[in-house]
This record gives sequence, C-alpha cells and structure tokens, in this order.
Amino acid sequence: MVFSIERRQQDVKALKEGTLDVLIIGGGITGAGTALQASASGLKTGLVEMQDFAEGTSSRSTKLVHGGLRYLKNFDVEVVADTVQERAVVQGIAPHIPKADPMILPIYDEPGSTFSMFSLKIAMDLYDRLADITGTKHANYTLTKAEVLERAPQLRSEGLLGAGVYLDYRNNDARLVIENIKRAAADGGHIVSRMKVVGILHDENDKISGVTVEDLLIGETFDIKARVVLNTTGPWSDTIRQMDDKVDAEPQMRPTKGVHLVVDNKKLPVPQPTYFDTGKNDGRMVFVIPREEKTYFGTTDTDYKGDFANPTVEQEDVDYLLEIVNNRYPTAEITINDIESSWAGLRPLISLNGGSDYNGGNNQPISDESFDKVIATIEQYQKGNVDRHEVENALKKIETGNSESGANPSAISRGSALDIDKDGLITVAGGKITDYRKMALEAMRAVVGILHNNFNLSYELIDSAKYPVSGGEINPQEVEAETEKLTQIGIEKGLSESEALYLANLYGSNAPEVFALLDEIQQVKGLNHADAVSLFYAMKEEMALTPSDFLIRRTNHMLFMRDTLDSIIDPVITEMARFYGWTDEAKANYKKELETDVAESDLKRLKGDVNK
Amino acid sequence: MVFSIERRQQDVKALKEGTLDVLIIGGGITGAGTALQASASGLKTGLVEMQDFAEGTSSRSTKLVHGGLRYLKNFDVEVVADTVQERAVVQGIAPHIPKADPMILPIYDEPGSTFSMFSLKIAMDLYDRLADITGTKHANYTLTKAEVLERAPQLRSEGLLGAGVYLDYRNNDARLVIENIKRAAADGGHIVSRMKVVGILHDENDKISGVTVEDLLIGETFDIKARVVLNTTGPWSDTIRQMDDKVDAEPQMRPTKGVHLVVDNKKLPVPQPTYFDTGKNDGRMVFVIPREEKTYFGTTDTDYKGDFANPTVEQEDVDYLLEIVNNRYPTAEITINDIESSWAGLRPLISLNGGSDYNGGNNQPISDESFDKVIATIEQYQKGNVDRHEVENALKKIETGNSESGANPSAISRGSALDIDKDGLITVAGGKITDYRKMALEAMRAVVGILHNNFNLSYELIDSAKYPVSGGEINPQEVEAETEKLTQIGIEKGLSESEALYLANLYGSNAPEVFALLDEIQQVKGLNHADAVSLFYAMKEEMALTPSDFLIRRTNHMLFMRDTLDSIIDPVITEMARFYGWTDEAKANYKKELETDVAESDLKRLKGDVNK
Repeated sequence: MVFSIERRQQDVKALKEGTLDVLIIGGGITGAGTALQASASGLKTGLVEMQDFAEGTSSRSTKLVHGGLRYLKNFDVEVVADTVQERAVVQGIAPHIPKADPMILPIYDEPGSTFSMFSLKIAMDLYDRLADITGTKHANYTLTKAEVLERAPQLRSEGLLGAGVYLDYRNNDARLVIENIKRAAADGGHIVSRMKVVGILHDENDKISGVTVEDLLIGETFDIKARVVLNTTGPWSDTIRQMDDKVDAEPQMRPTKGVHLVVDNKKLPVPQPTYFDTGKNDGRMVFVIPREEKTYFGTTDTDYKGDFANPTVEQEDVDYLLEIVNNRYPTAEITINDIESSWAGLRPLISLNGGSDYNGGNNQPISDESFDKVIATIEQYQKGNVDRHEVENALKKIETGNSESGANPSAISRGSALDIDKDGLITVAGGKITDYRKMALEAMRAVVGILHNNFNLSYELIDSAKYPVSGGEINPQEVEAETEKLTQIGIEKGLSESEALYLANLYGSNAPEVFALLDEIQQVKGLNHADAVSLFYAMKEEMALTPSDFLIRRTNHMLFMRDTLDSIIDPVITEMARFYGWTDEAKANYKKELETDVAESDLKRLKGDVNK
Repeated sequence: MVFSIERRQQDVKALKEGTLDVLIIGGGITGAGTALQASASGLKTGLVEMQDFAEGTSSRSTKLVHGGLRYLKNFDVEVVADTVQERAVVQGIAPHIPKADPMILPIYDEPGSTFSMFSLKIAMDLYDRLADITGTKHANYTLTKAEVLERAPQLRSEGLLGAGVYLDYRNNDARLVIENIKRAAADGGHIVSRMKVVGILHDENDKISGVTVEDLLIGETFDIKARVVLNTTGPWSDTIRQMDDKVDAEPQMRPTKGVHLVVDNKKLPVPQPTYFDTGKNDGRMVFVIPREEKTYFGTTDTDYKGDFANPTVEQEDVDYLLEIVNNRYPTAEITINDIESSWAGLRPLISLNGGSDYNGGNNQPISDESFDKVIATIEQYQKGNVDRHEVENALKKIETGNSESGANPSAISRGSALDIDKDGLITVAGGKITDYRKMALEAMRAVVGILHNNFNLSYELIDSAKYPVSGGEINPQEVEAETEKLTQIGIEKGLSESEALYLANLYGSNAPEVFALLDEIQQVKGLNHADAVSLFYAMKEEMALTPSDFLIRRTNHMLFMRDTLDSIIDPVITEMARFYGWTDEAKANYKKELETDVAESDLKRLKGDVNK
C-alpha cells in the first residue's frame, strides 16, 4: 500500500466519479474510526478532512487513555466500567499505541480535596474491580507520605497525606487517528485531507446526496456523491449542519478549551504520570505527565467562543496552570520562559446533553424552563414579592434538574450523541477519545441501517473490537517482547538501539516497513536515521503533506523534542520540497507556516508580552 | 431504681438546691445520650425537657437505624463507613432496640432512577465492605424480577428490573431515648420532663451559670445553677440561643418536615422493609415498612416554618405519598380513608452546614456571596449587558460552591454541629439518630474540657461504646436466644407467649422487672396483661405522665395498634388517673388531649375535608 500524494490523486478521482456508500466529513478520531469500520466492512467509503488528519481536535488531548477514576465520585460505575473495558479493547486493536503507565495520585489535606486516602483506596479498589484487574500486577496500591516523597521528592511535603497508584494508559492521540486512517485506506477507503466541504447536495426528495468540496491543495471545487453522509467534525459539527439548508438545526456544540504546557524534565522531573487536585478548591484536577525528556501538564477547561481552527494558549491559561504546578512543586519555580511548547484544544462538548471533562469541569446544561423560572423568581424577589428563601428554592430546583439528568450518568459523562437530521445527514458529536470505536460502531449501525432500508444494500459489519489498526498487528499480551523483536530488526538494519526502539514504539508492526526505507533513501543531511526514515515514511505512507503534519502529528517532535527541533526544520523542509517538487515560493510559504506553528507552540507571543 | 413522679419531685429539689456540673436542655436522643454519658462519668447532671422525652423530634423518625446506602451515590464512603460502624456500636449498647431487618430495594427502568441493577450491586458490595459484613449471613444479594414478584407480588411488575437486598436495621426511636434517660437516671442524673426553660442565667462575668425553668406540671418557676449548659433542643436550638441575651446568634436551623402514614398490612402487605425511588424523578426515595400488623411509608421532605411543637400532616403530604405508593403497588389503591395513623416530624437540619435526609432531599445552602453574585448577574442580564451564557455561568458557580462544601462530605451528610457561644452555652444541633452517641461524646468532651479548664474539675469519661442503655444488658451476639429466655420468664409468670415475647422485645433486660409487676398489680379491666404491666411500668419506671406518653412513646400503640386503641383508651386513662390522683377535671383534660392526638394521628381533619 502507499498512502502518499499519488494515492491522493487516485482517491480524488474516485471521489469525483462514483457514488459512495458513505462519505465521512472530518478526519478526527471519530471519522477515522468510522472510516476503518466502513472500509473493512466493504462499504464504498470516502472521508474528507479540511486540515490534516487529527489536526482540529484529536491531536490536542491530554494524550491518555484515561479510565476516569474521578467519575466514581459521582458513582458513575457504568461509565467507568465501560471506559476501562473499552480501553482494553483499544489496547487490543492498537497495541503499539496505548501503553500501560500507572498513575500516581497524591492526596493533600486541604479544602475541596476530591479524595481522602480512605475514599481513594475505596475508589481504586472499585476501579480495579470494574477493570477486572484486582489481584493482577496492575492492581492499585497506596503509598505513605514518606514513600511518595521518596518517589517524587519535588512534590510539596506540607499537607501531603500519601498517594494512590492505579493503572492508567498513555496514548498518542494523533497516531491513533493516522493508524485508523491508514487501515481504512489499505482497505480501499478514499481518504483525503485538505479537502474542505463547502456545500451540501440533495436529491429531488431533499434527501442528502453528497457534498461539494474544495481541494485546498489546488483550489479545485467538485461534487462528491454519497448515499449516506456522516458528519464527524467535532467542534465544527454545527457548521456543517448549518451549511445544510435542509437541516433546521439549533447549534448543539458548546466547546471548551483545554491547554497543556511542556517544560524540560530537568525543570520538573516527575517519576510517572501524576494527577492531583488543583489545590484551588475549584473542583478540578490536573495531570503532570513525563513524555520523552519533557514533562507536560494540563489541562484547563474554559468556555470557548473563538476561532475553532486556532484555539490559542492565553496568559490566563498559563497563569492558572503555573500557579497550580508551582504550588505542588514548590522548588520548580516554573515561569513562562521555561515553557518549551504547548498546545490548546477544544473539547467537542454537546450543550444539549451536558458534559464535562474527566477532571471536574462542569458543563451541565440548564434547561430553558429552569432558566426562565429562575429569572421570573428573581424578578419577584426584586419587587419584594418573594423572600430569599423562595429564590434559593428556585436555584436549588436547577440543581435538582441537573441531578435528575444525572440519573442517566452514562449519557452525561460520555457526552456523545448521534443525530439523524430530516434530510438524512448523520451527525456524531461529543464523546471521548477512549470511546471512539464505540461511537464509530454506533454510527456504522445507523449507516448500514439506512443503506439497507433506503438503498437495499446489505453490509455485515466486521467485529471492530478485534480488527487491528495499521501497525497494530502485534500480540497485545506480548507488546514488550514484540517491540523488542521489532527493535532488533532495526538494529540489524544499522540503527542505534534507541533509534530502533523509538521507531518500533511509534510504528508497531509497520516498523519493518519503516526500517526498509533505510535501503531506499540516501543519508539526509541534518537528520539522524530515525528522523529521516520517519519523514519518508510519513510522506510515502502517512500522507504528511506539510512540515507541521510531520513534526506535530506523525511524530510529536515539536511538542516533546524541542531541543532538536530548530536543527531539523531546514532539513525536513528541504526534503519535503524535493519530494513534493515545491516551488521556492511554496517552500517559503510552508516554512513560514511552520514558523508560525512553532512560535505559537513556544508561546512567543506571550513571552514577548512578559518581556515588554 | 424508680423513675416515677416521686423521683421527679426529688430531682426537682436537687435541681433547685445544688449546682450542677452540666445542665442539658432537651430530652431528645442527643440530650438523652449526653445525660447517660455525663451521669455515668460521675458528673452532677441535670436534664430538662419541656414536653415528654423524645416528643418533639426523636419519636418522629422513620424508625430505622439506616446505613445510608444512597450516600454512596455521592461516594460519601467515610460517612457510610462511620454510619454502619456506629450502627453496630448502638446495636451493642442497646441490643433490644435496633434489630437487623434486611431491606429490599427494587429497581425500575424509569427516568431518574437512583441505581441500575449494576450500580446497585456495586453499591451494596461496597456497603457490605464498609460494614465489614462481606461473606457473612448479612451479605447483600440480588433478586431477579421473578424473584422479586414472588416475594412481593403486589409490587408493580411493569418496568421492574430486579432488586437488591442488603442489611438494614429497624429502630424504636422513642424507646432508644427513654432507655438512655432511664440509665442516666439510674446513674444519678436529675432528669425532668415537662420542665420548660424560660430564661438564661449569667454570672458577673456574663458567663452562663444556669437557667430559669417553669415546671409545667405545677406552674412553678425556679432557677437551676449549672457550671455548663448544653443546648440539645433540635429544632428549638435557635429559640434557646435567642433567649440568651449574651449570645449574638444568627438562626442556624432550617428544619424540614417528614411525614409517615400507616395503613393496615391487609391493605398493603409487604414482606420486609422496602426502599425505592419515588418514581417521580424528583431524586428522592421512600420507605415502605411492615411493623406489627401494619405497614407504614414515608417520608416527605419539605421546608417547614410552622409551629415546631405541632408539625402536622397536610393534604399535599398525603397526596405525595399516596401517589408514590399507589404507583408502586397498583392493586393497593390506598385512599386517605385507609390511613389509620400517621406522624409528622421535623429534621433538625442546620442551614449553615447544609444537610439532607438520607433519601435524596436537598438542603444545600447558598452562600451570601454566591447569592448576591447571582442577583447582580441577573440584573445585568435584565439590562441586556450580559448574555444568557454569563447567567448560566453564574448559576453554575453556585453549584461549584456546593460541590466545594461537598468536599467535606462528612460534615454535610452528618449535618451535626457543636457551637460554643461566647457566654459558654454549648449547642449541639443537627445530626442523625444513628450518630447520637458520637454527638453526645463530642458534647461531653467539650463539657469536661470546660469543667477542667474553668472549674478545675476533672472527670474521666466512660467508654460510651460499651456502656449499655437501660434494658440493654443482653449479649448483642445472642439477642434471639436471650429474648427467648426472657420470654420464657414471662410465660412462667402466666403470660401468653405472644404477650411475653412482645414485652421481652420492648424492654430487653428489664423484662423480668416488668413481668414482676404481674404480682403487684391487680387485673385491669379492659387491658390485657401485657398492656397492664406496660402501663404500670411506664408510670413507675419510665416517667409516663400522660396517656399519650404511654400510648405513643413508651409503646407505639397509637401508631401500630390502632385496632385496639379505642378499647384501651378509657382503661388507660382510668388507671393513670387513679395512679396519679388526678381530679375529674384533670382527667377530662388529659382525655381531651389524648383525643386531640388521636384525631391528628388519624388525619380526621383531612378526612373530614375529603368527605365535604
């Protein structure tokens, strides 16, 4: 298989010519997972993404396949059970991506603490039970204060009571997307990035029959015909629905922004992923996570109304996270100038269902009825017709409203929704990365239902819980041993052990294919072997079309390898220009685009402010 | 020991003459428990109660020593652990009162359900773990729908998913109070009912030094001197503090009313205590409990601002409970005319701390700051300066405020508070019956601290967890066998087995003393042996001063034996009049008072309304 720009031309041709069974709009994790299931099940499948795959949202998460221990505080045991079980499924179909990485959760004696040592132990035991890992090597345990400080000496000692350690998983969000995409492409899906939907097509019965797209690489506009159109555009899902003049859609998305900041691990050494209350008594928790030679921390959770394509890290985000982290690690004294890179992403929360992140954010909706009642009661209060007591009762009724909807914790906590508009447009929105396969499965059931009922086409869905993503053909029970074997192949090809291991971890069962490129490509000036083969593999097999595609999403170089970034930028651009035959002007533009991305990640804008 | 009207005269004399170490105002469960601990620890102890012991609040509960399974929904594991552990302590010191009585909790498929079968099983397992009964005969189990309907065929079948069965305990609230009082009296405490505090005394330093009381039996007013004064008057605790002109006390109580209704068990047969969601999606649950030959159900949870001494059952309370129960038991078709008796009580909730009953009521407080912010934001909204989004954010901040205070679930869920005013008045308010011993212990620690620091008096507290109440000298591990032995003694004295068993259950280790009265008293016309000896025991040893004292609180005759009530009223009044030497006028007054109580319990007022 190739999944390169030549393949893109073939796919564009196919999109223009035939009629798809399903066209998926949006190449984030939900669209990618759906494309995989659709292609594997034999549907004639297309997917268009206006940016790079995963660029909008799915590359901007906390990069954990998090079990949601905190949900046990609401006794959302069904949600936690589903999540930890699904996590195991994802680990099974993508064994090279989610990796077990136990989380330490220190407990402080302070107002607003989420857990006491007692309730944490109870919660972790329950969590292990739900994950079916009680009594295994992954089972939780607690640490005394002394044991915590031995392990993590930088943590604040004052008020520390101890910690719990429980199973959690690291993730590589953008690579989970591309590996789904690659499998879908290998199975015949026509998957095209930089292809923007600019119009919705309908048949004579006002049923949706396709979309008009603009190929952003060449500026060409054309129609794609499809029996079913699926909208998996996350924060943009309202945009697509509003573009569809046969849909009478109220906006349903209410995204919030989440920010992560990266510092060198010499500045903030942490022994393992760490999760604690903010200490600000705001009901939230934050993560501090080691990755490569860096430590990153986040997240924030603030309402967002700006440009969905460019959520940015603002001064208040930095202030919030630095205050929290410097409080927990009093000797760290991190300032904005220590931040090497960063990312800001949007949670595609559905305001209709409500939703919250795992960390205590609150986006519970208030119903119109409830809202109106509060306003009316307060008007009466202002007129002196009712007393404060009545107002409090009205305000309490809002809470009751929430706790009622809380009666269906699954819907709230998962926060995903599938809607079929009257013209047949299917929108799947909300939800968490961990649940992407199940959301995709739900979407596929709707798709094959419509194909069967309206088009007399019958497809049997593959068992997506057992269908590996690209690179995932590894025994999930033997990931370490298999990675070791793959690493040996790289070493035999002449790579250093660390380079070979890095590539084996990144590409899983595709690593031999990556290693094979060592024979094909020449030495690239300024790039080590690993970076060189990664780059060529990204262009030949992973549709990396721009430097940022490669440096942010195919690898996390810009995020976690800032030290070597500047030195590889020019070689990368030079090789990409040669590979793609860019004009000098195009090359300069791509370089400028990359520099903008780097400056944003570096927070140059804010650091400038500070230095003023 | 005698605890009769003669003893009362001695106690009044003692109250007038000496200086007490501690004077307790209020003879509910908190005051009674404190009096027991104070007397047993050798303090010169007085207690005054303006009504009968337990009359105001502590005789009006759901009559369970409930473990609070529902609190697990908030993951209040500390509270549940403390509660179920304390329940075992209370069972140890009063083995004849709380009796293990497993609860069945049916689950329906309906909006707003508190538990699913899955989350219920998880919650019950956790509950068993916290109660340390996993693997014992008391361990929880689930029932299928068919098994539930076999056991409780009257339950609505539609939507029923199954049930859980878990350990809970029945209680006799008023008798737990009187057995504490009797032990305190036996240990030398001066415990007097119908003695109302009408003033607070201070020394030259403005420190509290006693109270002025009015003996409601004879109208006499006198002073009681005490080194420490303890206010355990539940809903009235603000009244006492406001009576104290050296206390600058904001009202802190915000009581809610809870109603229970009793029907014949032929009308509503239930196999065991039953607990279910209201089905009204109001976040609440209700109990349906068999007792004697009756079934009672409740409770309501509504703000209460009326006369604390006379909370009444209102039409809306009846409507609310009948709707719920008739929905769950579709063939029952209970109407108000089926209600044989009832009671209404006040939960002494503290508005400062917030608090709620076990069943989902919500009395979370809203801080002044938060309240003002909401009003201000809505004013801006009305002026068009901010949008709805901002208002929702402000409303959400209220919830965050609550979830912050929720960070200390123990305080909220237990809802008790101990305050020491600047003149030294100690107020213990709020709290649940199950926690009475611990609240009393907390009060006693404050009392002995003041006695030590201010009066150079040292007392060592007894171990209240091992100090039985009156009637409690029974091996708690062998309650059934010991009750059987006691029953045999009654049978040997000539009682029928059912009478002997009834008395053995009611009086525990005091039963032989009760049986001995058979030799002393003559046959009482119109009363069976059991009622006759109960009555005389109540007058000689339990300070039953009025017919209602006997028929409501020393026994539950008025509540659960309505069938025989009318026939025993005259004999009871006749014997009491003879015993106390009442004039004809006094006798007529007591009879009238009793008739008023019966009419209220019968809901004659509301039934009259219905028949209009």
